[in-house]
This record gives sequence, structure tokens and C-alpha cells, in this order.
Amino acid sequence: MINDLLPHIETELQKQIARLDPARTRLFHEMLTYHMGWTGEGAGPEAAGKRIRPLLVLLTCAACDADWKPALPAAAAVELVHNFSLVHDDIQDNSPKRRGRATVWTKWGVPMAINAGDALFVLSNQAIMDLAQSYPASTVVRAATILHDICLDLTRGQFLDMSYEQRNDLKLEDYWPMIAGKTSALLSACTQIGALLGNASEKEEESYRQFGHHLGLAFQVEDDILGIWGNEAITGKSAASDLVEGKNSLPILYGLGKRGRFAERWAKGPIKAGEVTAVAALLDEEGARSYASEIAREETEIALAFLEHANPRGEAGAELLKLTNKLLKRKQ
Amino acid sequence: MINDLLPHIETELQKQIARLDPARTRLFHEMLTYHMGWTGEGAGPEAAGKRIRPLLVLLTCAACDADWKPALPAAAAVELVHNFSLVHDDIQDNSPKRRGRATVWTKWGVPMAINAGDALFVLSNQAIMDLAQSYPASTVVRAATILHDICLDLTRGQFLDMSYEQRNDLKLEDYWPMIAGKTSALLSACTQIGALLGNASEKEEESYRQFGHHLGLAFQVEDDILGIWGNEAITGKSAASDLVEGKNSLPILYGLGKRGRFAERWAKGPIKAGEVTAVAALLDEEGARSYASEIAREETEIALAFLEHANPRGEAGAELLKLTNKLLKRKQ
Repeated sequence: MINDLLPHIETELQKQIARLDPARTRLFHEMLTYHMGWTGEGAGPEAAGKRIRPLLVLLTCAACDADWKPALPAAAAVELVHNFSLVHDDIQDNSPKRRGRATVWTKWGVPMAINAGDALFVLSNQAIMDLAQSYPASTVVRAATILHDICLDLTRGQFLDMSYEQRNDLKLEDYWPMIAGKTSALLSACTQIGALLGNASEKEEESYRQFGHHLGLAFQVEDDILGIWGNEAITGKSAASDLVEGKNSLPILYGLGKRGRFAERWAKGPIKAGEVTAVAALLDEEGARSYASEIAREETEIALAFLEHANPRGEAGAELLKLTNKLLKRKQ
Repeated sequence: MINDLLPHIETELQKQIARLDPARTRLFHEMLTYHMGWTGEGAGPEAAGKRIRPLLVLLTCAACDADWKPALPAAAAVELVHNFSLVHDDIQDNSPKRRGRATVWTKWGVPMAINAGDALFVLSNQAIMDLAQSYPASTVVRAATILHDICLDLTRGQFLDMSYEQRNDLKLEDYWPMIAGKTSALLSACTQIGALLGNASEKEEESYRQFGHHLGLAFQVEDDILGIWGNEAITGKSAASDLVEGKNSLPILYGLGKRGRFAERWAKGPIKAGEVTAVAALLDEEGARSYASEIAREETEIALAFLEHANPRGEAGAELLKLTNKLLKRKQ
């Protein structure tokens, strides 16, 4: 089913982004199609990403026994929000590459990249309003309100992430509000909007929202674990390790809270690529890995319980569970 | 009447921005209240600006014989869009000051300023949805659609402005699509949304939209004239001259099209502050000033004709005309 949905998602995204196509602004349009993975060097599915967020919208909608086709503009809207935040994140983090390709700001400069991100955000607003073609205005207002509210959470999470870089007194409890904004907020909007457009009951909608929220938390913690002990982090590209990048990930905040040898080493300045294996082992010894794995397991269970409670139906319901399992057990 | 409206506008803006106030993100909230002119060094009405856009929304609404109070969230929304674009513009233009104060990016750095601009944009989306408290959902969808559509024009105008900096083959005709996006689009949204919320007829709403559009064009051309021959540009702060900044303003594009001595000088590289008086005089001799004045006069007439056609009523109608005259004849 996912393979049937994906081409529809791409077509809808291309339609939304084509609003920028007129003659004078063709290069502007090209910046967005490049970022979306459709044009330029290295274009293709790898560059486009997995479109997890729009899939969550459509599968949730269909798992409520509703037609997913009229929900396509909402699917495009969440993916556009995600990509707007990526374009701005790459500037903020000074990242030269994304999915193996040059980022928008490295290709066209910071001022143009800020504007390209703004445009993706505008297009997401326009996309969500396109729901008015198929749904009552009151539903459109609700869907847009959900999306706008979580966008504020996104900027709040981004603020926390950036402000943490200046701090050396971070505690474990500082982790959750950052991650709730940066990762969970948008995923909870995907499943909530999908349920809303699937005409779910209030109770089901709330269960889907909670499912998306905890899916986001579990997914992020798994990602944090891979960022230190995953194959890519340990071997070969060890510069990609969260230890080298100094990320405020859960295992690192846990390790700092222990005030042991890891915290001592951390306080002395950036971890170098050559130290990664040793420092990762140290952090493991101090219990950070098993702590994070336990949290990921708990959040996964909560997410799955809410999904079960939401009562997803039919083929889409089965696919939703499959996608969830794939997201949360990525090593398998 | 304007003096009655202004405190209501500020209160509504503060309410919208207070969505960012929770404990962990207080500094984030402070970035926005600083930019809005409410807090920090130099705070006050000078720093806040004239709130022309929200005034246009409310006066238009009231000039349709409707209550302006429920339209306040829309007034806040347009001002938030304006301020989002200012925060990002200041980064893009590398401007250290705005209204005599340090810009957000000079105070908190580019990454934080990008995020602060994003948040203002999110808040404008939330504000426009707040109309649902007083208007039917179908009206909210229409108002939001108008706002989102002109936001795309904004990013398009910004793209053109930035891309023009790399070009030396600009023609007079390149001016209008840039200005339509950068200045007119938002003003036309102000008057159109005001009319929509004032329950105007379709014809009146279209007249108000056109009024806002041409008001924007006339206003921008007047501003371009002041940017070269205004007191501030010629004397004292001549570094503020559009000639020194190399802006793609109407008189400059006219002068380039003449391919005379001005164009020759322009091609040789940036104008220095000491040359401003002489180059401004040269541009005047070549007819740029009278050309721009004639265009401003024409656009002003068109704007006023559309305003008359829209049939503004009562005290608000009179105030709308007064505000228009004030905006377009700023030297008086």
C-alpha cells in the first residue's frame, strides 16, 4: 500500500511547489525542487527521503476507514513543514551536506536559503488550506490550527536546542521539552490530522495524537542511541558521531548527569574522531546505553498501546503498525 | 480614531506573542518582544513602528460599517507577517540596525534570528486562525487563504530583490514584479481582509484589494524617491542613500535604462558617501526624479479612485483617506 501512496504524495508535493514556477522565479522554484530531491545532482529517492510524515497522515486517515485521496494536501503540508525546518536547520547548524548532497545554503548562499525555507513554509500553509476543496471549512480550520500549533512547538524546540549549545549545566529533564518540539510535535500532528480527516471519534483522534507523540519520542531516542553506538557512528564515518558533533542527545545528557569520567572528559572540550570508540565505551559502562534503550522500549510500548487503542482498521491499519515497527527497530 | 485603535492593536499583538512565554523559552519570547519594540534598549513607539498594516485592516473593516474589534486577530496577523519578513530581511541584507536599534541577528546571532523570524510567521498563522472565535469557518478559510497567497508573493519579491543584486542587465520592467511582492502584496491583503471581515460585497472587496495594491506601489515609489532625494539621503546620513546601498529602486533602474552618464558611473562600482549629492543630481538631470514622481502621482490617483469606488463610510472611511494621504505625501 505504501508503494501505491508514495507516487501520489510526490505528485501532490510537486503540485504544491509548482505555485512558485512562473518565468521570473524559475531559479527559486529550482531551489525547492533540488531540496525536495527531484532535480539537480544526486536527485532521486535517496535524496527525497522516506516521506514518513505524509505516509503517517494518509495511513492514519485510511485506517479510520476513510478515503485517503482528499487528505493528500494535508500530507503535502506536513512534509513541506518538515522540509522548511530542514532548510533552516542546515543553516543554523552550519551543515554542508544533507542526505549526501550539498545543502541549499551551500549551493545558493544563506540569504537565498532563508527565503527558500520561508517559501516551503508558505507552501505548507497553502497546502493545508487546499483541504477546503474536499472538507467542510470547520475541518480545515481545525487541521490548520493543529498544524500551526505544532509549528510553534517546532520553533520552541529549535530555540532550546540552540540555547543548550551555550550551556554546561544541562540536566536530563532538559531533554524532553526539546525533543517534544523538534521531533514529536510534527509526528503527533500527522497522526492527529490523519484521524481528523478520517472522521475519527474524538477519543480515537486523541489516541492517534498520543500515538504520534510517543512514536516521535521513541524514534528520537533510538536515533540518539544509533548516533553513538550505531555502525556509522562507531566505524568509518566516526565524524558523524553525536559525540563529535556535541549533540544534546539523551545518552550524553545521562552521562553528564552521572558526573563520572565521561562528564569529566566532556568538560575538557570537543571529542575528536579518534576518541569516539573509547568515549562511546565509557558512556556505555556508565549506563547511558542501557538507560536510553530502556526509555526507548518504554516509549515504544506506550506508542503501540495508543495505536491499539485507536483501533486502526483494514490494510492501512496493518501498514501503520508495520511502518511503526520499521521506524522503531531500524537495525532489524 | 487611530489613537483609539493603536492600544488595541498592541494588546492583541502582545497576546499573540505571549504564546511563546513559558518558563524555558522566556529568552525566545524576549527576542520577539524586543523586535516588536516593547522591551530592551530603545523600546517605545519609535521602535515599534507605525502599525500601518493593522490599521488598514481595522479601518477598512470599520469603513464597511462593521465592528472592528473581532477583526483584531487579523490585524495582528498582518503585522506579524510584516515583522517576520523584517527579521529575515535584516539577516539577508546584513543590516546591523533597524529603527535605530540593533537588529535581532546582531544581538542574538543569525541562527537564533532565523528561528525568531520563523516564530513570528507561525504566530501570524495562529493569529489568523483566531478569527474562528468570531467569524464563520468559511470566512476564516478565505482570510487565511488571502494571507497565505500574498506570503508566497512576499518570498517571490524577496527572491527577485536578492537575485537582482547579481545582475547588471536590469530593466525598468524588472522593478514591478519585485515591488508587487515586497510591498504591495501585504497591503492589498490588509485592505482585502478588512473588507472581507467587514462583510463587504464582492465588488467592494475587490476595490479595497486594488486600493491596497496601488497604495503599496505609490508608497514604494515615494519611498524610492526619498531614498535618493529625501533630506536624510542627501544630507547628514548620506550612507543611508539608496545610491550607496545599491538598491534596485525605480529611479536607479530608470537611470540605468538611459545608458547615460549615471549608468556609466554605476557600472564602475559602489557609489561612495561623498559622491551622493553629485550622483543624485546627475540622476535628476537624466529625468529619473520626474519620471518616478509622475509614476507615484499616477499610482496615487489609481489608489484613490479604487478607494472612492469601494465607498468607505463613516469616521473610519474618513480616517482611511487621511491615513492614505499621510502615507503618500509624507514630506508634507
